[in-house]
Amino acid sequence: MTETILAIDIGGTKTLATLVRGAKVLREVKVPTSREAGPDDWIASVAQAVGGWDEPFAAIGVAVTGFVNDGLWSGLNPATLGVPQDYPLVATIEATFGRPAVAANDAQVAAWGEYRFGAGEGEDLVFLTISTGVGGGIVVNGRPLLGLSGHFGQTLLASSGEEPFENRVSGRWMAAEAKRAGKDLEAPGVFAAARTGESWARPIIDASARRVALLCQDIQFMFDTPRIAIGGGIGLAEGYLDNVRSQLPAYRPRLAPNLVPARLRGHAGIVGVADLAASTLLER
Amino acid sequence: MTETILAIDIGGTKTLATLVRGAKVLREVKVPTSREAGPDDWIASVAQAVGGWDEPFAAIGVAVTGFVNDGLWSGLNPATLGVPQDYPLVATIEATFGRPAVAANDAQVAAWGEYRFGAGEGEDLVFLTISTGVGGGIVVNGRPLLGLSGHFGQTLLASSGEEPFENRVSGRWMAAEAKRAGKDLEAPGVFAAARTGESWARPIIDASARRVALLCQDIQFMFDTPRIAIGGGIGLAEGYLDNVRSQLPAYRPRLAPNLVPARLRGHAGIVGVADLAASTLLER
Repeated sequence: MTETILAIDIGGTKTLATLVRGAKVLREVKVPTSREAGPDDWIASVAQAVGGWDEPFAAIGVAVTGFVNDGLWSGLNPATLGVPQDYPLVATIEATFGRPAVAANDAQVAAWGEYRFGAGEGEDLVFLTISTGVGGGIVVNGRPLLGLSGHFGQTLLASSGEEPFENRVSGRWMAAEAKRAGKDLEAPGVFAAARTGESWARPIIDASARRVALLCQDIQFMFDTPRIAIGGGIGLAEGYLDNVRSQLPAYRPRLAPNLVPARLRGHAGIVGVADLAASTLLER
Repeated sequence: MTETILAIDIGGTKTLATLVRGAKVLREVKVPTSREAGPDDWIASVAQAVGGWDEPFAAIGVAVTGFVNDGLWSGLNPATLGVPQDYPLVATIEATFGRPAVAANDAQVAAWGEYRFGAGEGEDLVFLTISTGVGGGIVVNGRPLLGLSGHFGQTLLASSGEEPFENRVSGRWMAAEAKRAGKDLEAPGVFAAARTGESWARPIIDASARRVALLCQDIQFMFDTPRIAIGGGIGLAEGYLDNVRSQLPAYRPRLAPNLVPARLRGHAGIVGVADLAASTLLER
């Protein structure tokens, strides 16, 4: 029997609260994540939003931006969401909802969701989300890597240590580059401008895709994974994945990464963390 | 009962043939790897060198530079050793010695050796060898990653795709930099010159160590491993590991990599591949 899980995804702009059974989302509500408030308030808002739901749930899974270590939550990039260091996330969730909880980084559980129900097709994968920032998750030998792992967006070598990888790749970077070209546009506007042939826009997208292509090749050299699933608003924007593929270094097929689009879209995190909660809290 | 394994390490300049039981090296012979010859000859040389040994062995483990996929061996960097693509390594070894064999990349099995008998102390690790080139191996959830994995020396992002990481870090790079400074020295000579205060030498070592420091931080962001074991002639050269530590980016302790010296020195590969052979071929 598959249990119903309360699955919550606390993101930089909105929080998604859902009831999930297997890969099926039974109920769903979105509440804005008030950046000024803080985790106590974000959790209280979720409790209020789901207070009218009368279906029972057996456990809780929480996906968050940032870093979860032994149930304690810390932000890594304050530009995404200001999270205090070592916030007792699991303890607060368990006290609020009265059920056992697990918590993990949103991209890590999205990787798990794609592995179980999406692009993985039963094989290990690395998941990359190219969005406002850049996140990632890794499934090796059928198990998700948790803790700090998969934080490709925070890696430093590509800039000789000057700044995180995501700062030269993400939607936020695209918007900043557009501004340098005199355009007040977010990433979707940059893609639209490239489609209509505005000459300043294409190089921004190409540069982002080139860096992601090199990252994917490096992931292949490090993890030798059967597939890399690309998600996120930028990663799934029209033409972006093909752009990345076209800029991969030239290696023979066995050495080249196998890039596939992520399938679960905005539900990858909640489906993944629900499955993680069910498998770690209920079935052992 | 621990079985005796014929463990062979085919490197760029020499081939080591040993009899190993557990972590104990019972017999050992070195034969030069004739670069012009090729794998058939290298294996024939080993067979000749161990022909007088009368101890029985139950299986064979072969560690090689390059990439092993389904028993087929391919070189990745011809500067290290010219290996034809998809050479039938396991089949040739089994035909030559009449026992079942496994083969894997030398740094991957060195990682496994360190995990089982050396620096790992019972926990997962990432192993980096900084030597003529740069190699690596990964143990996750108590299992070694094989195939193409761990090839940190081949990654490209650090140079924006221009060349493999090892080309700006390794002993070969140090010698080339020394040459640009007008000195005809190999890496040990660069270290000696730095110790005696020759001003051209220190920046070469510092630059190599800085890049390794960033790689180690990135490994932490990607793998969240309990420890990174550093080996190889450069990695274990006096002062190098402390140099790397001193150039790590400033993060709080939980986010920082835990760097430790590798312990098994030149025996990590053979001990690791012997254990891999024993555990995969004999105990299942």
